[in-house]
Amino acid sequence: MIPYASRIASMQETAAIVGNLFKGMTDPSIISFGGGAPAKEALPSELIGQLCQKIFAPGGRGTEALQYGPVHGIADLRRAVAEQLLSPKGIACDPDNILIVSGGLEGIYLTCQVFIDPGDVILVESPTFVHTVEIFDMFQARCVPVQTDDDGLNMEALEQAIRQHHPKMIYTIPTFQNPSGRTLSREKREKMAQLAEAYDVLVLEDDPYRDIRYSGEDLPPIKVFDHSDHVILANSFSKIFSPGSRLGYVLASPEVTQKLGEAKSATNSHTAMLPQILCAEFFNGGYYPEHHKRICDLYRVRRDAMLAAIDRYFPEGTKHTFPDGGLFTWAELPMGMDATALRPKAIEQKVDYVAGEGFFVERDGRGKNCMRLSFGANPPERIEEGIQRLGNLLKNA
Amino acid sequence: MIPYASRIASMQETAAIVGNLFKGMTDPSIISFGGGAPAKEALPSELIGQLCQKIFAPGGRGTEALQYGPVHGIADLRRAVAEQLLSPKGIACDPDNILIVSGGLEGIYLTCQVFIDPGDVILVESPTFVHTVEIFDMFQARCVPVQTDDDGLNMEALEQAIRQHHPKMIYTIPTFQNPSGRTLSREKREKMAQLAEAYDVLVLEDDPYRDIRYSGEDLPPIKVFDHSDHVILANSFSKIFSPGSRLGYVLASPEVTQKLGEAKSATNSHTAMLPQILCAEFFNGGYYPEHHKRICDLYRVRRDAMLAAIDRYFPEGTKHTFPDGGLFTWAELPMGMDATALRPKAIEQKVDYVAGEGFFVERDGRGKNCMRLSFGANPPERIEEGIQRLGNLLKNA
Repeated sequence: MIPYASRIASMQETAAIVGNLFKGMTDPSIISFGGGAPAKEALPSELIGQLCQKIFAPGGRGTEALQYGPVHGIADLRRAVAEQLLSPKGIACDPDNILIVSGGLEGIYLTCQVFIDPGDVILVESPTFVHTVEIFDMFQARCVPVQTDDDGLNMEALEQAIRQHHPKMIYTIPTFQNPSGRTLSREKREKMAQLAEAYDVLVLEDDPYRDIRYSGEDLPPIKVFDHSDHVILANSFSKIFSPGSRLGYVLASPEVTQKLGEAKSATNSHTAMLPQILCAEFFNGGYYPEHHKRICDLYRVRRDAMLAAIDRYFPEGTKHTFPDGGLFTWAELPMGMDATALRPKAIEQKVDYVAGEGFFVERDGRGKNCMRLSFGANPPERIEEGIQRLGNLLKNA
Repeated sequence: MIPYASRIASMQETAAIVGNLFKGMTDPSIISFGGGAPAKEALPSELIGQLCQKIFAPGGRGTEALQYGPVHGIADLRRAVAEQLLSPKGIACDPDNILIVSGGLEGIYLTCQVFIDPGDVILVESPTFVHTVEIFDMFQARCVPVQTDDDGLNMEALEQAIRQHHPKMIYTIPTFQNPSGRTLSREKREKMAQLAEAYDVLVLEDDPYRDIRYSGEDLPPIKVFDHSDHVILANSFSKIFSPGSRLGYVLASPEVTQKLGEAKSATNSHTAMLPQILCAEFFNGGYYPEHHKRICDLYRVRRDAMLAAIDRYFPEGTKHTFPDGGLFTWAELPMGMDATALRPKAIEQKVDYVAGEGFFVERDGRGKNCMRLSFGANPPERIEEGIQRLGNLLKNA
C-alpha cells in the first residue's frame, strides 16, 4: 500500500461534507433547492447549436477548435472579457493580464498553486462556500473564519484577524455571496482594498454571481479600489453562459498572470478550445445583452416567488436574506431547529436543500438552524410547492 | 510584495526550458518538426460538426452539454473507454474505476496531487517528456533519471535506482516514447510490474501514443501485468480524437480513483461537458475504427518520409530511432554537434525542431547532439524539404 500525499488527509473532512451536502441531487421527482446550477431555461442551447454550425462550416474555426491552443486562452475571448465584462465595471485592463481557466474554481485553485504553502492562513467569510474550502484544504492552508454582517465581512473583525493571524490571503465572494446571498457594501469594498495594501495581504475576489443582478444598484468590484496589485479577481462564465463549458477567467498583475499560466500549463496545458470559441462567438457576436436580460428576468421572478413563500410558509421567527441577484437565499430558522437532521425527512417529502452547517469552517455546530436555498432551478409554482412542504415539515418538527 | 509559494521557485528552471523549447512555433512559413500536435488532416472536424448538430437538435443532449456534470466524467464516455480502448488491450475494468480528465497531463497532475509530497523521488526515463517534469517540479518532487536502452528503461539500472533512492513513483511513457519514439519491450513491461510490487513503488504509465501504431506488433500495457494495484494508467484522447478537446482518462483502483476524483473536484469540478459528449458520440457511434485507420495510414507515410530523408540528408554518423507509431523520432547527431546552438540558424532557414537537451533532467549538457523531430504535422514533401534544409545546416556547422 503506497501512502497518499499528506494533503489527502487534510482534505477528507471537507470532501465528506461536500459529498454529503450534494448527494442525490439528480432525482427529478424531488423539488431541489440544493445545488447551484443555473436554470435549464437559462442555458442558450439553441444559440450554441447555431454557433457550432458556424464554427464547423467550411472556412470556419473547426480546426482551431480541435487543435492545441494557447495556455492563457484564446485572444478573442480574453478581449471580450476585458471589453464587455471588466471595462463596464470600471476595470481598465490589458487582455494579456487575463488568464482563461476551466471554470471559476480553477482560478481559485491556480491562485493557491501560486501563493499557498502548507500552513498559510486564509481568512474566509463565516459562512463561506464549502467547495472552495475543499481547495484550501488540498493546499493544507489553515482557514480562519471572520464574522459577517448583513452587508458582508465585518471590517473590524477582519482587521483584527489580520493582525492576529498574519494571513497570506483573504478569500471573499463579495456579491450575492454563496451561501448567504449577502453583498459587501461599497464602503467595505474600498476598505478591504486598503487593508490588503496596508497589511500586504492578498485578496482573492471570487465574483461569479455579480453579473446576474436583477434589482438594486451595481457595485464596483474590490479590484477597482486596488492600486497596488493586492487583489486577484476570479470569475466564471457558469452563471452567465454555461457551467458545463467549464470556463472562467482570472485578472491579476502581469507577473502573477505569468505564474498562474505556468501553474495552468503544469495542470492541464490549457482550457478546452471549443467551449472557449463558442463563448467568444457568443460575446463577440453581440448575443450577451439580450441573453443577460432574459436570465435576469427569469431569476427575479423565481427569487420573488421563493422569498414570498418563505414568508408565508416557514415558522414564525425565520429570517432570510434579500439577495439583489445570484441564485441563493439563506434562511435562519428559529434557534433549536436543526436543518441537518431534517434533511432526510425533507427528501422523503420530495424536497431538498443544502443544510447550512457545512458552510461554516468553525465546525462547531453553528449553522445547524440555517438552510441555503437556491431559487435558480425551479419555476415559481414548484418553488411555492417545495417551500410549502418544507414549511409544513418545520412546523411539525 | 506577497511571496509566492515555495513550489514556484522549483518550477522556474523547467518552465523556462518549456517556454524556450516551444517558443515561436506558430509561424506558418516555418516547416516545424517541433511541437507534438497531430496533423490537422487527422482531426475529425467535419464529423464533429455533424455530431454537434445532433447534440443540439431538439430532444438531443444540448442541455446536458451546457449544464454541470459528474466529477468522474459522463457514464457513456467511461463505458466507451472500458469497452473500446481498454478491453481490446487485455484490461478488463469497471467503468467506475475510470476518471475522465481534462487532457492526459491532468491525469499525471492528479496522480501527483494524490501521491506526491515535496521531496518524494520520482524515477524518470532519460530522456523524458519535459512538460511532465514541469508538473513534477510543481509538486517539488526530486526527479532521478534512469538510463534507457533501445527497448526502453534499463531494468538493472531501474532496480538499482529503486534500491538507492526509495522512489514513490516510476514515471514511464512505454510506447513510442516522447521524445525518443522508443518502445518498452514486452518482457520489460512484465518486469516493471513485478518490481513495482516487490518494492512497493507506484508506476505511472503514461500511454498517449500507443493507439497510433502503424507497424509492428501491439504490446500489452504494463497495467495488464499489475496484480496488486501498483500501476496507474493515464491516457489521452489528444492523438486519436482531438487535443483541443482536452480529454484524457485515468484507470486506477477504486480507492485511488475516489481520491483522484476528490483532487479533480478541488481543481476544476469536472471536465467540460460538450467535448466529453462529442467524444462519447464519436466512439459509441462507431466512427473510431475508420478514423483510426485513416490517421495511421497518414502518419505511416509521414514517418517513412522523415526517416528516409534523415538517412539521405543528415551527416554521416547520425542515428535515429525507428518508431512503430506515435509522432516522434529522435536523431542523435555525431558527437560535438550542438542542436541547441543550431536552432536559431534553423529558424532563419524556416525549419524548426526541439533541441534534445531539454528532455534530460540531468541538466549536464547531455542531449546537446540530439533532436526530437515530429513527423506529424507536415505532408511528405514538406518533411523532405525541411529535413534537407536541416541536413545542409548540419553539414555546414
